[in-house]
Amino acid sequence: MDTLGYLRRTHYSNEIVPAVDATDVVIFGIVASIREHGKLTFLILEDTKGLVQVTIHKNNVPESVVAKLKEIQEQSFVGIRGKVKSTEKAPHGAEIVPDEIKVLSIPHCLAPFKLYKQRLPNIEKRLDLRAIDLRRPQPKAIFKIKHVALQSIRSFFSGQGYLEVETPKIISTATEGGAALFPLLYYNKEAFLAQSPQLYKEQLVGALEKVFEIGPIFRAERSRTMKHLSEATSVDLEEAYVNYEDVMKTLERVITFTIAEVLDKCKDELSLLKVKLKVPQMPFKSYTYDEILKLLSDEAIEVTWGNDLFVSELKALEKKLPDFYFIKDWPTSSKAFYLKAKDDKPEICESFDLMHGSLEISSGGSRIDQKQALVEKLKERSFDPAAFEYHLKVFDYGMPPHAGFGFGLDRLMMVLCKQKNIREVVLYPRDQRRLIP
Amino acid sequence: MDTLGYLRRTHYSNEIVPAVDATDVVIFGIVASIREHGKLTFLILEDTKGLVQVTIHKNNVPESVVAKLKEIQEQSFVGIRGKVKSTEKAPHGAEIVPDEIKVLSIPHCLAPFKLYKQRLPNIEKRLDLRAIDLRRPQPKAIFKIKHVALQSIRSFFSGQGYLEVETPKIISTATEGGAALFPLLYYNKEAFLAQSPQLYKEQLVGALEKVFEIGPIFRAERSRTMKHLSEATSVDLEEAYVNYEDVMKTLERVITFTIAEVLDKCKDELSLLKVKLKVPQMPFKSYTYDEILKLLSDEAIEVTWGNDLFVSELKALEKKLPDFYFIKDWPTSSKAFYLKAKDDKPEICESFDLMHGSLEISSGGSRIDQKQALVEKLKERSFDPAAFEYHLKVFDYGMPPHAGFGFGLDRLMMVLCKQKNIREVVLYPRDQRRLIP
Repeated sequence: MDTLGYLRRTHYSNEIVPAVDATDVVIFGIVASIREHGKLTFLILEDTKGLVQVTIHKNNVPESVVAKLKEIQEQSFVGIRGKVKSTEKAPHGAEIVPDEIKVLSIPHCLAPFKLYKQRLPNIEKRLDLRAIDLRRPQPKAIFKIKHVALQSIRSFFSGQGYLEVETPKIISTATEGGAALFPLLYYNKEAFLAQSPQLYKEQLVGALEKVFEIGPIFRAERSRTMKHLSEATSVDLEEAYVNYEDVMKTLERVITFTIAEVLDKCKDELSLLKVKLKVPQMPFKSYTYDEILKLLSDEAIEVTWGNDLFVSELKALEKKLPDFYFIKDWPTSSKAFYLKAKDDKPEICESFDLMHGSLEISSGGSRIDQKQALVEKLKERSFDPAAFEYHLKVFDYGMPPHAGFGFGLDRLMMVLCKQKNIREVVLYPRDQRRLIP
Repeated sequence: MDTLGYLRRTHYSNEIVPAVDATDVVIFGIVASIREHGKLTFLILEDTKGLVQVTIHKNNVPESVVAKLKEIQEQSFVGIRGKVKSTEKAPHGAEIVPDEIKVLSIPHCLAPFKLYKQRLPNIEKRLDLRAIDLRRPQPKAIFKIKHVALQSIRSFFSGQGYLEVETPKIISTATEGGAALFPLLYYNKEAFLAQSPQLYKEQLVGALEKVFEIGPIFRAERSRTMKHLSEATSVDLEEAYVNYEDVMKTLERVITFTIAEVLDKCKDELSLLKVKLKVPQMPFKSYTYDEILKLLSDEAIEVTWGNDLFVSELKALEKKLPDFYFIKDWPTSSKAFYLKAKDDKPEICESFDLMHGSLEISSGGSRIDQKQALVEKLKERSFDPAAFEYHLKVFDYGMPPHAGFGFGLDRLMMVLCKQKNIREVVLYPRDQRRLIP
């Protein structure tokens, strides 16, 4: 086996084209296939941009290169220095005739599943070998799209004057209810992993006015589903001097912008995944909780007013409402303690969910900004206000009216990549069964 | 107190200038001061862009506005609709004459420390009221700079073809040694919080070639210092087909780029913090471990070859080496198990630290890419290879040569904002003593 030495990439596979005919190039990649035809050997290399053909005619290359052919195996990592030669028969219309081949690794095992086409093992088996599974073109396409989505979201918020913040993941109080917390030992105290940045982002708007965060959240979900994970990426926004209607507009704008960017920058990836994406029309459709109950009733599903809505119920509306839509004005009792009740109708709160079909993408609303109201809600919900002392104290010093939302990046990725299983859009997904080292 | 209603911001404080004289505007902010001169009341409001003066002449404004003056207190959050009026005596050369004032909150307490000038309480006291402390101009400047630094770093890496990834924070093995781990209860198993994305980012380069991540890392530090935190933000990069010299160049380029961006976009913030920043010259100075031992010896500090270097020792070189510099080619025994030994001199490994004076900013190096060598190093260090089975298995399928680094974003922020205490550059810092809800 060879060392890297001084060999450094000059080109990617998709840059080996007739326009650079006769140029000296260096490429790196993994050997996807080796085919021999008499004195000719054809290597197909794969890098992150695609495939490139390397053609060795035993009489036309240095001895050392011929010798290397004996070492190379499928799925070896190699580096190749050579000359580009136009030829219709190769990907991109050109191939490489090598002067030097470095065999950088020789696999001891070959991937137990074909990296291309054919039936794949189920995701659980593939996750046991995730780093190898990720070598397939489909996951590479998914994570390229995720990269573009992340840059787009931040670019949009940043351009709109939101400051990126980082709030702690180790906390000492539950924010979304105590059931789904991961406890940890923090030196000699008990602490928890944050289920959301909710309390911190609210505190921050008093000083910083407009903030966003993209980071991990941790929920010890009881049930194991195709759309829940123990560790997920949340995109959170909070803003002063606005209400839920304002942040709903911001939410639909960032989603629309992101989809437009993905359409623009990830054509090849969307094509490979066979995904037809279209920029949603703004404003997104919006229904009140009451209107949804009526629609459900039309489908012979009766929901007691005040109850949360279940996925099994919302599935019945999927044909009527297949795209993005808001459900707003929920019963106050069905939503988190920090949501602000409507002035004229306190049994309803200024809240919304953003759905895509029956998939919940986001939750948000106007927040309570008065300490007394917050204390009352905490007591109503059997929380001990003393556990929230640090947070409540901030309200003593005054808080502006504010609103915000959180959305699941991985949920949005399920929509962008048309994936039914959230695990496909997370590099190393975590759930009750899976704790990869 | 008033509700938000339909009032929405049209301008920030720094946009209230003579050029918009006679324009109707809406601004929001916190009341920094109230001064009465007979029939005139001057309010100074502060928003995230600075200060603006609001002038109420009791005879020139609606009765409702005069009535509001009785409600307004210092540190109230207010919204004001009014007309701009040029005047030399106000900040930016213009003030607002209000038609409508909404008092959005009335504080029950006033901040126990002056938000402007004067001697501040120490950081520990300020962290007890961090959301109020953050209303001061200096922290706001620091976190604006942090925002710009984050966008710059990602923009640089993204533009260079690195894919942004998100690796798990809940893991089941230690990567940097077992001592500084936070254990957690993951459903019914024991797990830990990730000390770094090291093993995952290495696995990913086989498929994705060039990756970066900016996210939280967790270390149960034994000692409490001015530059260590239990939860910190790490910027990590890993790349295939390169060695440590290549990634050292990438590191100095991203830092230089980021400093240039901060200089360009944060002039006001740097000025307020009284920080004189300059773009460092590339290439950064670079010394081998051996050369550093010689320099220390010149200062009468003798270090046994093979030992790690202590901050107390490196402080002696601060006058000679005050800026960014690399220390490379460390003793293999002093560095993590995954660092690759030099082919010709295995007692030394292809490794580097990036220092700024005596502050360690980054560590990195060429990685071991052969399973056998990795297993041997694990055993040498009394790690049980079985605990690393998931990671080692990836090497069975072949890994390309690769290298990378991690740097502390908060450490870089200490340099950018000339802060001696890392707590000043983290919104809600965590250490052994501090676990804010």
